[in-house]
Amino acid sequence: MELGLLYSGGKDSTLAALLLEEFYDVTLVTGHFGVSDDWEHARATADRLGFAFERLELDSEVAREAADRIREDGFPRNGIQRVHQHALERLAAAEPGYDAVADGSRRDDRVPTVSRAQAQSLEDRHDVDYIAPLSGFGRTAVDRLVEARLEVTVGPSEEIDRADYEAELRRLIADADGPQAVDEIFPDHTQTYVTDVYR
Amino acid sequence: MELGLLYSGGKDSTLAALLLEEFYDVTLVTGHFGVSDDWEHARATADRLGFAFERLELDSEVAREAADRIREDGFPRNGIQRVHQHALERLAAAEPGYDAVADGSRRDDRVPTVSRAQAQSLEDRHDVDYIAPLSGFGRTAVDRLVEARLEVTVGPSEEIDRADYEAELRRLIADADGPQAVDEIFPDHTQTYVTDVYR
Repeated sequence: MELGLLYSGGKDSTLAALLLEEFYDVTLVTGHFGVSDDWEHARATADRLGFAFERLELDSEVAREAADRIREDGFPRNGIQRVHQHALERLAAAEPGYDAVADGSRRDDRVPTVSRAQAQSLEDRHDVDYIAPLSGFGRTAVDRLVEARLEVTVGPSEEIDRADYEAELRRLIADADGPQAVDEIFPDHTQTYVTDVYR
Repeated sequence: MELGLLYSGGKDSTLAALLLEEFYDVTLVTGHFGVSDDWEHARATADRLGFAFERLELDSEVAREAADRIREDGFPRNGIQRVHQHALERLAAAEPGYDAVADGSRRDDRVPTVSRAQAQSLEDRHDVDYIAPLSGFGRTAVDRLVEARLEVTVGPSEEIDRADYEAELRRLIADADGPQAVDEIFPDHTQTYVTDVYR
């Protein structure tokens, strides 16, 4: 069964890939808005870990709306949630299609979240399974599996090469309001990216 | 890491075991109230599939309360939920302890369910991770994985050798109100048990 997993190069989506690879033919799929080339970091990580990779073109209008929402809110939650839902919709509608689509959302995540009703709606409209393999794992369980299976680099978001939507949204916000606005909205925010996995 | 998985011999808990075995040292654990020897079916299945097995003694008072609740309600949901929570508590408190405890509950199950708050409470009180590996999978996704990985036998509950709490609760209800009461409470109920897995 062919499965497309929304992939950032970070630890959650990489761990999701390891959980699924025994059961599906996993392709790591990174969404991008054409704002930056950050998606190339995810491709490099996918190559290194031995996974198939695709990039998924997202609607740049959604990025602008999400960036505006984050600037108005002063915090990223709602904007990130909007972009994640858009990416899942695009992934589920991709042609040629996947039998299943997945993401790295965890039980204890505040954002992005996909409710049971949203999951069933996505599945019904696109005739696809939606799978959130980490949604049954809490924070400590994920941390322990990351420790056991992944080699990661941790640092401040602006110095870390990874490819989630945040990088492009930060760029849009910086273009509109300057780099200081980004620091205020994402204070002390650290990110991880994966350099290797132990199988 | 040592993980104890609540196990019935059915397809959900067996699939959960397959999802977890790459990441944990999995022991299949079957709760029993001493009402019947149905747990022995689970041990036989665990042996056949090559998993470690333990049985977990449950409080027979909880079984009586649950059976009475089911008889009053006329449907099994609340009684099954009560027993499942009790079994998870006992598993999390077992000595020598597990690093993680798990069950086979699915995203689309109406019962048993473990809310995020219940999961975190269990983890905090017992210093253990609680993992529900199927909670990110919908009904169709589970069915497809079962089809791909498990060899199962399906039949009416009363003819199927498996070892979930239901068998013992059915026995208690039949002892109190006769076999017809069981048929009314569990109408046309089919169960599966697993005869082999494809790894």
